[in-house]
Amino acid sequence: MRENELISKIDRAFGRRPDASPEVRLGRGDDAALFRPRAGQEIILTCDWFLEGTHFLREKHPPDSVGWKCLARAVSDIAAMGGGPRCFLLSLALPDTHTGRWLSKFLAGLGRASRKFQCPLAGGDTTRRQEISINVTVIGEVQKGRALLRSGARPGDLVYVSGHLGEAELGLRLLSGRRELRKPNDALTKKHLYPEPRLSLGQWLAKTRLASAMMDLSDGLSGDLPRLCAASGVGARLEEEKIPPIQDPVIAQHYGLNLLGLALHGGDDYELLFTVPRRKAKLLPRAFQGISLTPIGEITKGPKLVLREENGRERPLAAGGWDPFRS
Amino acid sequence: MRENELISKIDRAFGRRPDASPEVRLGRGDDAALFRPRAGQEIILTCDWFLEGTHFLREKHPPDSVGWKCLARAVSDIAAMGGGPRCFLLSLALPDTHTGRWLSKFLAGLGRASRKFQCPLAGGDTTRRQEISINVTVIGEVQKGRALLRSGARPGDLVYVSGHLGEAELGLRLLSGRRELRKPNDALTKKHLYPEPRLSLGQWLAKTRLASAMMDLSDGLSGDLPRLCAASGVGARLEEEKIPPIQDPVIAQHYGLNLLGLALHGGDDYELLFTVPRRKAKLLPRAFQGISLTPIGEITKGPKLVLREENGRERPLAAGGWDPFRS
Repeated sequence: MRENELISKIDRAFGRRPDASPEVRLGRGDDAALFRPRAGQEIILTCDWFLEGTHFLREKHPPDSVGWKCLARAVSDIAAMGGGPRCFLLSLALPDTHTGRWLSKFLAGLGRASRKFQCPLAGGDTTRRQEISINVTVIGEVQKGRALLRSGARPGDLVYVSGHLGEAELGLRLLSGRRELRKPNDALTKKHLYPEPRLSLGQWLAKTRLASAMMDLSDGLSGDLPRLCAASGVGARLEEEKIPPIQDPVIAQHYGLNLLGLALHGGDDYELLFTVPRRKAKLLPRAFQGISLTPIGEITKGPKLVLREENGRERPLAAGGWDPFRS
Repeated sequence: MRENELISKIDRAFGRRPDASPEVRLGRGDDAALFRPRAGQEIILTCDWFLEGTHFLREKHPPDSVGWKCLARAVSDIAAMGGGPRCFLLSLALPDTHTGRWLSKFLAGLGRASRKFQCPLAGGDTTRRQEISINVTVIGEVQKGRALLRSGARPGDLVYVSGHLGEAELGLRLLSGRRELRKPNDALTKKHLYPEPRLSLGQWLAKTRLASAMMDLSDGLSGDLPRLCAASGVGARLEEEKIPPIQDPVIAQHYGLNLLGLALHGGDDYELLFTVPRRKAKLLPRAFQGISLTPIGEITKGPKLVLREENGRERPLAAGGWDPFRS
């Protein structure tokens, strides 16, 4: 398959009119895409690797999950700023063996995500490579001055998370233990394979100005909270028993997994981690559109991150989150 | 080296204030970057792979050239639309062995290009990988409605190229033939290693509305002209003797290289290919800021692309440009 044919296949999967969105004035097929920003908005820019062997396994992960997830995790960065996605660029490097059936299923999953997140494909780059390599750039918008940064947390603010932590990691463990994936859509692996970025929640928190700082959880609470604290120049104290674990403890225990460990260190949840000034906390519902919002601790002055056990004893929160460069 | 250390190294190379540009309100260190578009402008979006083995060779190409070129070729897509670059995102995947000296030199080259093109680093993503993999997204701007597309060529328009074609390909051949690169800055390999996107020329052609269509030459004239013609629904007739070859024929002949072949099929020149309505052609100078502007043929009605030899005989222009998916 030649590069032009590969591009045609992508064009077919995404419809004949690439510039269907009002913002994307010129889509694929030129040197670059043209995007018309709305008045009063700032542009949000993010890009994410999605690489075979690092972020997914060719033989384990269904190609439509690879398509869905490569876009979902980049869109999650837009959610984490309180914005909405507008369009994306796809850089795809494939071996010749994967330009047929694999590519079709990959594009089906990517297309589903693109429609679900209302984020049309605006352009990209394709090439040949032995290992499947994907890079996704998402362009989003947020009302000027309303973006929620990592740097806004202040001592005394409450620390919140959305949803239940560790679900995606559990899904990954289940998937790794199986020879073959029989039911790719079962509830336990769904969060790992088809994560849903918290777009509505993020936009609501930005619009209402309830949150003081926000980020998404991609590398686990213990890996990501230190980043938010470092950006804000603060510390944090978490209450161990308040951290919301997965809701199906039986299966986790069956596999010998520690619920707190999963919730603290499990990656890929794409839930939101945010801080709320104490006086605004009463305005926050317990759940937003069915997603629980749980206070798990508070921001402190010092640079330290500590975990308070149920018995009142405190221990340092050790980063166990996912870092590709850790040996 | 951990991911956080790698990011710190990139931050140090690009200065401590990542959001130094007035447009980039928030740079690295958050979930995403924030960019404030200027009034009356459209956003240009482009991304480009730069992969070991495909676009460069780890042992042959100096790391500072890899850094320079990965940005220069993406910026060339902005030049090809008639716009100016505003900021870029860097996705970098490296093996552990290359996070020291190699990375420092890579960042030096990338930093030089970033300053030269006035295109600050706004964000990115890093991970570990055995093969060096780079993806660059550039965000540019162009006055609303002034972008030069591939689709604007009309029958009768003259076809122009900037500069001399085949220089980068010659540089690649010279480089491939050497055991070691002794003088990375010599004139013959410079265009291959450190290409300069034609930003001023592209912006001038868009501002003056002299050109009807434009693209940059990355895959060779014979590979790229068909794309411009297809987008415009036209054909073209080129005059063989008018195509401007490299200016140092002795060295090419010494290596047994055909000058016309180099000019037609050589990739990576990053010169501009553009069309000009015949009535405007007299307004075009022979050179712009020292870069020659050469009429090489004309746009025709039919879909055919032909090459007229000096003796008047015509033959089809066969695509010999670079296509990573051609086997």
